[in-house]
Amino acid sequence: MKRIIIDTDPGIDDALAILFALGLPGVSVEGLTTVSGNVPVEQGTHNALTILEAVGRTDIPVAKGAAYPLRRRLITAEEVHGENGLAGLNLPQPSSKVHDLSAVEWLRHKLRTSLEPITIVAIGPLTNLGMLYCLDPEAFAKIEEIVFMGGAAFCSGNTTSAAEFNILVDPDAARHVVQSGVPLTMVGLDVTQKATLFAEDLARFEGQDSPLASFARRLLEATFAKRTGKIELGGIHLHDPLAVGVAVNPEIVQSKRYYLAVETEGEVAVGQTVVDDRPWSKNEPNATVAVDVDRERFLNWFLDVLTH
Amino acid sequence: MKRIIIDTDPGIDDALAILFALGLPGVSVEGLTTVSGNVPVEQGTHNALTILEAVGRTDIPVAKGAAYPLRRRLITAEEVHGENGLAGLNLPQPSSKVHDLSAVEWLRHKLRTSLEPITIVAIGPLTNLGMLYCLDPEAFAKIEEIVFMGGAAFCSGNTTSAAEFNILVDPDAARHVVQSGVPLTMVGLDVTQKATLFAEDLARFEGQDSPLASFARRLLEATFAKRTGKIELGGIHLHDPLAVGVAVNPEIVQSKRYYLAVETEGEVAVGQTVVDDRPWSKNEPNATVAVDVDRERFLNWFLDVLTH
Amino acid sequence: MKRIIIDTDPGIDDALAILFALGLPGVSVEGLTTVSGNVPVEQGTHNALTILEAVGRTDIPVAKGAAYPLRRRLITAEEVHGENGLAGLNLPQPSSKVHDLSAVEWLRHKLRTSLEPITIVAIGPLTNLGMLYCLDPEAFAKIEEIVFMGGAAFCSGNTTSAAEFNILVDPDAARHVVQSGVPLTMVGLDVTQKATLFAEDLARFEGQDSPLASFARRLLEATFAKRTGKIELGGIHLHDPLAVGVAVNPEIVQSKRYYLAVETEGEVAVGQTVVDDRPWSKNEPNATVAVDVDRERFLNWFLDVLTH
Amino acid sequence: MKRIIIDTDPGIDDALAILFALGLPGVSVEGLTTVSGNVPVEQGTHNALTILEAVGRTDIPVAKGAAYPLRRRLITAEEVHGENGLAGLNLPQPSSKVHDLSAVEWLRHKLRTSLEPITIVAIGPLTNLGMLYCLDPEAFAKIEEIVFMGGAAFCSGNTTSAAEFNILVDPDAARHVVQSGVPLTMVGLDVTQKATLFAEDLARFEGQDSPLASFARRLLEATFAKRTGKIELGGIHLHDPLAVGVAVNPEIVQSKRYYLAVETEGEVAVGQTVVDDRPWSKNEPNATVAVDVDRERFLNWFLDVLTH
Repeated sequence: MKRIIIDTDPGIDDALAILFALGLPGVSVEGLTTVSGNVPVEQGTHNALTILEAVGRTDIPVAKGAAYPLRRRLITAEEVHGENGLAGLNLPQPSSKVHDLSAVEWLRHKLRTSLEPITIVAIGPLTNLGMLYCLDPEAFAKIEEIVFMGGAAFCSGNTTSAAEFNILVDPDAARHVVQSGVPLTMVGLDVTQKATLFAEDLARFEGQDSPLASFARRLLEATFAKRTGKIELGGIHLHDPLAVGVAVNPEIVQSKRYYLAVETEGEVAVGQTVVDDRPWSKNEPNATVAVDVDRERFLNWFLDVLTH
Repeated sequence: MKRIIIDTDPGIDDALAILFALGLPGVSVEGLTTVSGNVPVEQGTHNALTILEAVGRTDIPVAKGAAYPLRRRLITAEEVHGENGLAGLNLPQPSSKVHDLSAVEWLRHKLRTSLEPITIVAIGPLTNLGMLYCLDPEAFAKIEEIVFMGGAAFCSGNTTSAAEFNILVDPDAARHVVQSGVPLTMVGLDVTQKATLFAEDLARFEGQDSPLASFARRLLEATFAKRTGKIELGGIHLHDPLAVGVAVNPEIVQSKRYYLAVETEGEVAVGQTVVDDRPWSKNEPNATVAVDVDRERFLNWFLDVLTH
Repeated sequence: MKRIIIDTDPGIDDALAILFALGLPGVSVEGLTTVSGNVPVEQGTHNALTILEAVGRTDIPVAKGAAYPLRRRLITAEEVHGENGLAGLNLPQPSSKVHDLSAVEWLRHKLRTSLEPITIVAIGPLTNLGMLYCLDPEAFAKIEEIVFMGGAAFCSGNTTSAAEFNILVDPDAARHVVQSGVPLTMVGLDVTQKATLFAEDLARFEGQDSPLASFARRLLEATFAKRTGKIELGGIHLHDPLAVGVAVNPEIVQSKRYYLAVETEGEVAVGQTVVDDRPWSKNEPNATVAVDVDRERFLNWFLDVLTH
Repeated sequence: MKRIIIDTDPGIDDALAILFALGLPGVSVEGLTTVSGNVPVEQGTHNALTILEAVGRTDIPVAKGAAYPLRRRLITAEEVHGENGLAGLNLPQPSSKVHDLSAVEWLRHKLRTSLEPITIVAIGPLTNLGMLYCLDPEAFAKIEEIVFMGGAAFCSGNTTSAAEFNILVDPDAARHVVQSGVPLTMVGLDVTQKATLFAEDLARFEGQDSPLASFARRLLEATFAKRTGKIELGGIHLHDPLAVGVAVNPEIVQSKRYYLAVETEGEVAVGQTVVDDRPWSKNEPNATVAVDVDRERFLNWFLDVLTH
């Protein structure tokens, strides 16, 4: 049984990633921790509770995390994810409540007390993890592995020419995580922009009415509907689901070991994940970086899990 | 009854401040929260427990806070406070334990649940408060007032020409606190360097053997002993006790309302508290800044409290 | 004979400083070099030529300097000095022309070839000097002394709470100058804001119709007229004339040796001149800093020179 | 006749670039301007004079430029180019002298007075050009085109993982150049690291004893000799000659129009040239960026020119 905690700012693809994780056999989702990113943490926490309610998994704890990045002013992405973060999808009020502990403290206790190794799949800005690192580096060091969706190794960013959204929101937190020494896998735009789901892929949901399948289909349909006319977007990038996939099956992507650093200053490159690809570099690799993915293979897996 | 929480990195003058607070009538010390600063938080937390044990106040909770600043590499001040932070004083192991919650979470719960207003007297780097602000700004906003020892308004710094130690350790956290909108009083080097206790003042402790008096005297004697030959230091600056004094009796200092900002960047002025003293400034004051103190008056009060 | 070059961004008080220098016995003004600051260098160069024409000193060369600061975007101060930099004073077109060499190259040649020591009185942003330092440090090192109007040692800035205008315009250039090792005197707001000329002082010009006196009176009258109703300004600060005064007679101010540094980064303290006033500082003094001035004494001297 | 000025920090490949330019039919090298980079400007200027002397072209003026970058501390690369910048090659003292004007002023006059368009091939740090831009933007705007060797668009840097040497030495100057609006072509590591000359290519020099061929062969032999045992270096990258080649024949590389920006801050990405490759970017292209090169074709051209 692989135990994971999903640190998330739901977010459309966050929701898909959570659904994917819930459907994966052999995977135990120990909890969801939330953070401001795609939407403010208040909304994201509500969304996390809503998603779990919709698929009948209110047994999974949800702990609310950081409202603001460690240093920079918060930026959000409602223009991508809709005002409510879930493509405007109208969902019933969740009956369950957020955990009494904050996400940072809940992680701290979970890590300090768990007898099993825990992987954190971080699919939002890394504020909670950066904060935990500063607050209690001993607890942080107990993390088995961090697989994060974020950054761009050999391609341009998305929010700026240099930076991907999750890292740009809190580069200081990302720097803590990258320098922490905890085993690290970066699932960045190099691969997630290849993991694209197109409108025709929705056909796979036909005749499927499990809670997971229903929710995923409704969310995808709402997303495509919202995007009508925005041709440049084409399909939906499965950024966050791919990170869940890599956490469970690293072979789903091609990856290489690199020395990775995060730029926290400047006007041009702030938020950039800089990969050291120089053959003569003396820097020891500190991260596994996903560099390529077989889109068909991942998409099939993803849709199989959601539709069965 | 004035309820205060002392956020501290003990530290010689932190210890004196805690003792002073414990001796003040009408003041309830609701808890101590610790942070890395004068010494790493591990040592400082141990010191906090030790101090409370020595004076029989193990009823007061101690919660351990941030090991590292929000962004910068930790600097400490053992050359001033001794390796153990308490001038090398040998104290028995405390029997009580640190609280199960981290300082940040303990503050969060205390603030969310307290029916009474709570003042925080912050006498170390402001990391815990900065972290709480980012994590849970709603809880942070419940603070009645923050009185912090730190910064320098119209004089040079101590650790650098521009910066005082507490602010320099974590200027990013200080900036969050200063910009938060919570009522704020700065007790900086302008006044704390005037609040000096000299060796001859130790005579006031003669014949006093209450736990507070004994502990304070031993600590002061150890501090003077450690400094032998360092003429430039002269007396002992009662930085942190003065902040406790101001929290309880603001009249003990002269102060003015200013717009205050913290520089978080640069090589020269990082960690500086910049006060806007321009008559034509459009910036609204956001802090009460202590600008002068009657040394005799404060010292008498301080020694009265410790020796009775 | 004291040989000075005035590096200037004229500017009302620049014009007064130039007139003052021209009137000082025993002083040879070898040239004027211009720089963007109070007004863009195009306008300032025109003003320099105009001033020399008006007082019959077209023998003095004017070399046009830097249009932009070394790194930061140019800020100017037309709201203080008027659109034309000279309080809107209408002056005839100058007949003389700007030098063929740029200010930086003219300074370079002058310094490399002069047989006599040369003092530079810098009363604008320090861009030309910073550029000369980077371009040709050997020529720069031949400067006998730099007396600059700029910065604030123990008081707030004027353009921001931390920074004085001249330094804020080009802190990078100021840092080069301060770190260059050339003998340096800073005449900052601590003293120049005390060197104030009030409307009643204009009486001293009555019956004086030398070119210097006429020009100075017209300029001052235009400045007071422009300021009508802006009570907060009171008198006119003789910032730049005081720097000329200090270059010729250092005793006109009280001053102390300090280690001086310039902050070039940050949002709060950028452009600040940080003086190290810590008794225990290990930093060697690198500048003479004016800390006080007898307003009456300076003003009398200034008016005597202009009116005789 | 194409008129070019070579702005250079010679440097082994700078020397090869100069020789290549001198050998190109239809190209007039109007002057060499020097700058600190591979070696300090004093040594580089000496090298420039030496090179021209060795090939009998003392008719070409050499003007000495900036000793220091606009803001950052100078870094040099003697470990690559040898102490004297020319692989330790022993050359006779030049008989000609450096121009009386500095490089910046010489460029300023040349640009202001030339009746023909002038292309600048910048193969060192961009300090001289950055300085000219700040000093006299009107003169700068007369540049027909700047072709610079520097930066890395889609590959790692060489001096750091993010930055190529020339840009890292003076990113502030590079930023001025990139934002100036002058037509710009970047010849970066993406292509120059493919333009490699191997030891076996030296055979092409056999039987050739023109001054150009002799000098080039001696320099290349000395370079290979110096590198003995440093297998990782393999061949010699013809960084700077390729920039000359592109200036004269843009078709020698494949290139694309991009929006280009230079990071001037930070610890990780300072000195990086960030290319905006996002299909949905709103940034207007401001530079032609070389992205690929046919090594054989360029090498043949380069060797043909030097050996005939």
